[in-house]
Amino acid sequence: MIYVIKIGGNIIDNPDNLKGFLGHFAAIHSHKVLIHGGGKLANQLAEKLNIPQQMVQGRRVTDAETLDVITMVYAGLINKNIVADLSALGCTSLGVCGADADLILADKRLVAEIDYGFVGDIKHVNGNTLFGWLSQGISPVISPVSHNGQGQLLNTNADTIASVVAVALSVYESVSLIYCFEKMGVLLDVLDDTSVIPTLNEENIEKLKEKGLIHSGMLPKLENAIKTVKLGVESVVIGHADALPEIILGKSGTKISLQ
Amino acid sequence: MIYVIKIGGNIIDNPDNLKGFLGHFAAIHSHKVLIHGGGKLANQLAEKLNIPQQMVQGRRVTDAETLDVITMVYAGLINKNIVADLSALGCTSLGVCGADADLILADKRLVAEIDYGFVGDIKHVNGNTLFGWLSQGISPVISPVSHNGQGQLLNTNADTIASVVAVALSVYESVSLIYCFEKMGVLLDVLDDTSVIPTLNEENIEKLKEKGLIHSGMLPKLENAIKTVKLGVESVVIGHADALPEIILGKSGTKISLQ
Repeated sequence: MIYVIKIGGNIIDNPDNLKGFLGHFAAIHSHKVLIHGGGKLANQLAEKLNIPQQMVQGRRVTDAETLDVITMVYAGLINKNIVADLSALGCTSLGVCGADADLILADKRLVAEIDYGFVGDIKHVNGNTLFGWLSQGISPVISPVSHNGQGQLLNTNADTIASVVAVALSVYESVSLIYCFEKMGVLLDVLDDTSVIPTLNEENIEKLKEKGLIHSGMLPKLENAIKTVKLGVESVVIGHADALPEIILGKSGTKISLQ
Repeated sequence: MIYVIKIGGNIIDNPDNLKGFLGHFAAIHSHKVLIHGGGKLANQLAEKLNIPQQMVQGRRVTDAETLDVITMVYAGLINKNIVADLSALGCTSLGVCGADADLILADKRLVAEIDYGFVGDIKHVNGNTLFGWLSQGISPVISPVSHNGQGQLLNTNADTIASVVAVALSVYESVSLIYCFEKMGVLLDVLDDTSVIPTLNEENIEKLKEKGLIHSGMLPKLENAIKTVKLGVESVVIGHADALPEIILGKSGTKISLQ
């Protein structure tokens, strides 16, 4: 089993959370890939450098200066510190962005209503190279920067990278894709943290949607999860980073699969 | 033959120089490794962030904030842009620092007269992993940051990394180590750019030293070159980045070898 695990800003921004998570990650005795987002560090650096940041629908508008900030913070500072920390935990990892070894090829997003700037939409993932590293006992740690193959780096959504990497690796071995976020899973009642739904499939999700029981922020995550399992990933789990060992054991989080 | 090539700030700071160099690098039809220094970008970022920089004997005193700047600029911005540029030139490369795949293990330099801070002295290079990538047709691009294996990144001299990487790879295949700098080679007369000495060995160097014909800045470079060839590297060439194709053909630069 290959575990493809995505962490976001809520873990990266807090050194204790990150340390705890990396301990759990390093302890997984199986092939594993980590995809990390950015968190507040990029905003903080942009502010210090007087580079105004604009977010549209939760996505960062990425001009040339912002792309440099992203590349420095995501592909440099965060990525290399995670790799050094994992090494100290006995886990040999390789920090890469999508340009490295031509791992993730993307197109610069076409300008429609909004010009997102240097933002990439993924068109190909080099699963063969990733699986080669896994076979050598090396865990890839992927920062959310891709490239267009013509010398241009592109800021790329980390959730999407996690999904396409999981799909690309599912050709070689069963893949479990785990999205770590700040809740224990998908909640039946958004005000009740104990109301985690343990398993979901397409039919369940449709029923919950009809009843209006899915929180609007969660809906695209679930729809993407269904797409991902349809493309060959065994399961997508949405859960809390602190509960990673229990997620691996199937005892925590919400597991979305075909069945 | 494996070519291990080191470039410094004089190439990195000038986009045209860098572009020209990368074109030459990508065109080498043989195993190749690129090691890059930093240049002025780190100083510029430190200045914008109001982090005072202190250089002692040409080496950067690296406090925690400066280490973050180094990691962002060297391992992030410069490294990933080089990788994307090489890909556009048809050369698949992998941008790494010494923490990645536990490539370069170092000790934090002991505090003697000067406290250099988070600066590393190399104690081990993982040549096996580097040669594995070369065998897969991937050219490593190494930024001058190593780690101590206990979670600490360390700023590390790029010339030294080039030398130890060349030695580590010489176990697998003949290695030519090329230092690109701003002159055409070692000059017999420092005021005459055409007075390049084509070949040097230990005996020649000793004679030139005795006659006081070696420029003081060049002496440690030549002494390190002699050490490196004694450790198994076939030759060390000191030459101009623009002349890389001619250096590869043995028609430019100063070649230091045992013979």
